[in-house]
Amino acid sequence: MKRSIGARTLAMPAPVWLVGTYDRDGRSNLMTASWAGICCSQPPCVAVSLRQATHSFAAIQARRAFTIGVPSQAQAREADFIGTASGAQVDKFAACAWTPVPSQAVDAPYAAEVPLVLECRLLHTLEIGLHTQFVGEIVDVKADPAVLDAEGRPDIRKVQPLAWDPAGQGYFGIGSPLGKAHDLGRDFGAGPQGGR
Amino acid sequence: MKRSIGARTLAMPAPVWLVGTYDRDGRSNLMTASWAGICCSQPPCVAVSLRQATHSFAAIQARRAFTIGVPSQAQAREADFIGTASGAQVDKFAACAWTPVPSQAVDAPYAAEVPLVLECRLLHTLEIGLHTQFVGEIVDVKADPAVLDAEGRPDIRKVQPLAWDPAGQGYFGIGSPLGKAHDLGRDFGAGPQGGR
Repeated sequence: MKRSIGARTLAMPAPVWLVGTYDRDGRSNLMTASWAGICCSQPPCVAVSLRQATHSFAAIQARRAFTIGVPSQAQAREADFIGTASGAQVDKFAACAWTPVPSQAVDAPYAAEVPLVLECRLLHTLEIGLHTQFVGEIVDVKADPAVLDAEGRPDIRKVQPLAWDPAGQGYFGIGSPLGKAHDLGRDFGAGPQGGR
Repeated sequence: MKRSIGARTLAMPAPVWLVGTYDRDGRSNLMTASWAGICCSQPPCVAVSLRQATHSFAAIQARRAFTIGVPSQAQAREADFIGTASGAQVDKFAACAWTPVPSQAVDAPYAAEVPLVLECRLLHTLEIGLHTQFVGEIVDVKADPAVLDAEGRPDIRKVQPLAWDPAGQGYFGIGSPLGKAHDLGRDFGAGPQGGR
């Protein structure tokens, strides 16, 4: 019997991504976002939700573009710092000793040090409540050659992305591989229904 | 120097969640979704994107409700099967030997066997492209007492949720804890900017 624990944002895991923007004065900024996810395959899109109070919120509205950086678990300290400081007061690139790189694809910067970056142009803005969701079309993905596999795809074991636990408010690494899609579950469905 | 690898949905990690619905005939169904994420704190909301061709798509539109089940890594085989079969042809609850439980909060079912469940009423529908995004307000969360910590919150190390790798198309567990929010990065920002 399950226990009711109230109306709370307790789905897990959430990602830990770095949203890169230029503010109205042209300054590069990053913020950490976990209320986010891929939201469409074609056009390829990613959604990220921000509070209106953040410095990045106005920046996305002004430039209609952002980047999504996927930091490695070796960058967990930077990701946490970037989530606590405001770009209105602090140059977070400088504080992390990171280099802002202008995207060639959209009007937003990313950190050279982050292994995987999605370059997004703003497609939809959905006001939900405390958070507003920005849906960005992924116009290109840039990756460090060191994190690519033999087929040229980012290897999750090399990227080593972070996972966020919204219940315990902590950062986690990615664990062991458990299996491949359309393979792991192939023994199911041959029972009462007579196969797939 | 980063390499351009094209406009692809390569942000990671993505979640592995089970969307529970009643179809128009009142049959319980589940589908696996990874194009999903938390999208607002207040009201607490979760977004999940489905292709119009799925059986669950019409079900969410008809009942304006769904559940999000967070399966454990011990249920990775079931999650993969649920992502490959269609509820139009197969009773996935029966194939998994899982029990559908009617939500007390919304007009949708969930699997008794899944440790953590969010009960959602449809708040927004955003047509993006191949996928349409459904934003659901989380009206309650139900959890197995066995996965709760001393404060009554779901413990990610007990839930053992799955992570999805959209590049390698594989399932992963959650790895080691790396630190807590607003703590891990506290040594940054005391440099050139003179403190936070």
